[in-house]
Amino acid sequence: MRFHTEYLTFNTRKHREYVHITPQVEAVVKKSGIREGMVLVSAMHITAGVYVNDDERGLIQDIDEWLENLAPFRADYRHHQTGEDNGDSHLKALLIHHQVILPLTAGKLDLGTWQRVFYSEFDGQRPKRVIVKVMGE
Amino acid sequence: MRFHTEYLTFNTRKHREYVHITPQVEAVVKKSGIREGMVLVSAMHITAGVYVNDDERGLIQDIDEWLENLAPFRADYRHHQTGEDNGDSHLKALLIHHQVILPLTAGKLDLGTWQRVFYSEFDGQRPKRVIVKVMGE
Amino acid sequence: MRFHTEYLTFNTRKHREYVHITPQVEAVVKKSGIREGMVLVSAMHITAGVYVNDDERGLIQDIDEWLENLAPFRADYRHHQTGEDNGDSHLKALLIHHQVILPLTAGKLDLGTWQRVFYSEFDGQRPKRVIVKVMGE
Repeated sequence: MRFHTEYLTFNTRKHREYVHITPQVEAVVKKSGIREGMVLVSAMHITAGVYVNDDERGLIQDIDEWLENLAPFRADYRHHQTGEDNGDSHLKALLIHHQVILPLTAGKLDLGTWQRVFYSEFDGQRPKRVIVKVMGE
Repeated sequence: MRFHTEYLTFNTRKHREYVHITPQVEAVVKKSGIREGMVLVSAMHITAGVYVNDDERGLIQDIDEWLENLAPFRADYRHHQTGEDNGDSHLKALLIHHQVILPLTAGKLDLGTWQRVFYSEFDGQRPKRVIVKVMGE
Repeated sequence: MRFHTEYLTFNTRKHREYVHITPQVEAVVKKSGIREGMVLVSAMHITAGVYVNDDERGLIQDIDEWLENLAPFRADYRHHQTGEDNGDSHLKALLIHHQVILPLTAGKLDLGTWQRVFYSEFDGQRPKRVIVKVMGE
């Protein structure tokens, strides 16, 4: 049984951003030498998510508008009484979910043809971390 | 440490459909011979999900209407500029999430009394795959 | 390869409630003696969830209002034809998701600074269970 843990750091230019990270996850898997098992990819922040979907620019804009529609920026979240202004970022992160588990089979991420891993930043412009933990043999 | 990986294929009659797959997942677990560990059940497509909830016909219709309400079909998604017309299917899949991890204890799926595993198809009428990966001993 | 499984029981005073359970999950991990691996924390009911986010009272109220807004109580869910009245509880549980996987590194939950684990009850005032399963070495 082997484990390999790495931390990726993202510092996005924009407040909200969707970063395609499949190549970085694949690099961690390769470095681990583990060929069979599972890979946890999990945001270490409460205003960011990780999801699997299409790497298509139009769809990414659709996702962003959809999240803003269902979990909009508002001035009057109770959370803002703490001095924060990112209540919507928390809700967007909950909606998209903060983690995925990727199957690892025969040395490769066992994903469907169009499945790509994304880091979704909802309160960026500062360094934020994602854990990639590989577990297997 | 043992691994067992199988792929289930679904070709639904309807565009959207909710398929109860607990028996199929249990069959994979039994075949694996693994008695303790975790079972990843994950859609391999970006317009389908896997979730755990009640096998009750009325609730399934409620879930379908709720998803259509929160992630409606629309003609004007940007994703459709690629020639696709399934923008809503992607959003529904993100909302329901594409995977679950089932605990496996003493040779059985360690689920609550009413927990059942569902494959949720949001763009069907063609063959689509779900990976079931068992990891344990 | 080692496994350790425990079941937590919650009986909330209110119909909906958000219970901070990080200390209880940490206690299970400590008791397991496992220092490297993954911890599954998963509700065993179909009207409850488990999520990771901030332990901040205002935000928790925001989350509760947001869930009620997106998955409102309604008298007319089809599920209620069975005699139930908790259709909204199922939808809220689907939205927040019923489980998380926590990375375990060097004997500790490998969470970000502000990440806390919550049990979210959407149909309480009766005993309900959460499985905590630790897998690793």
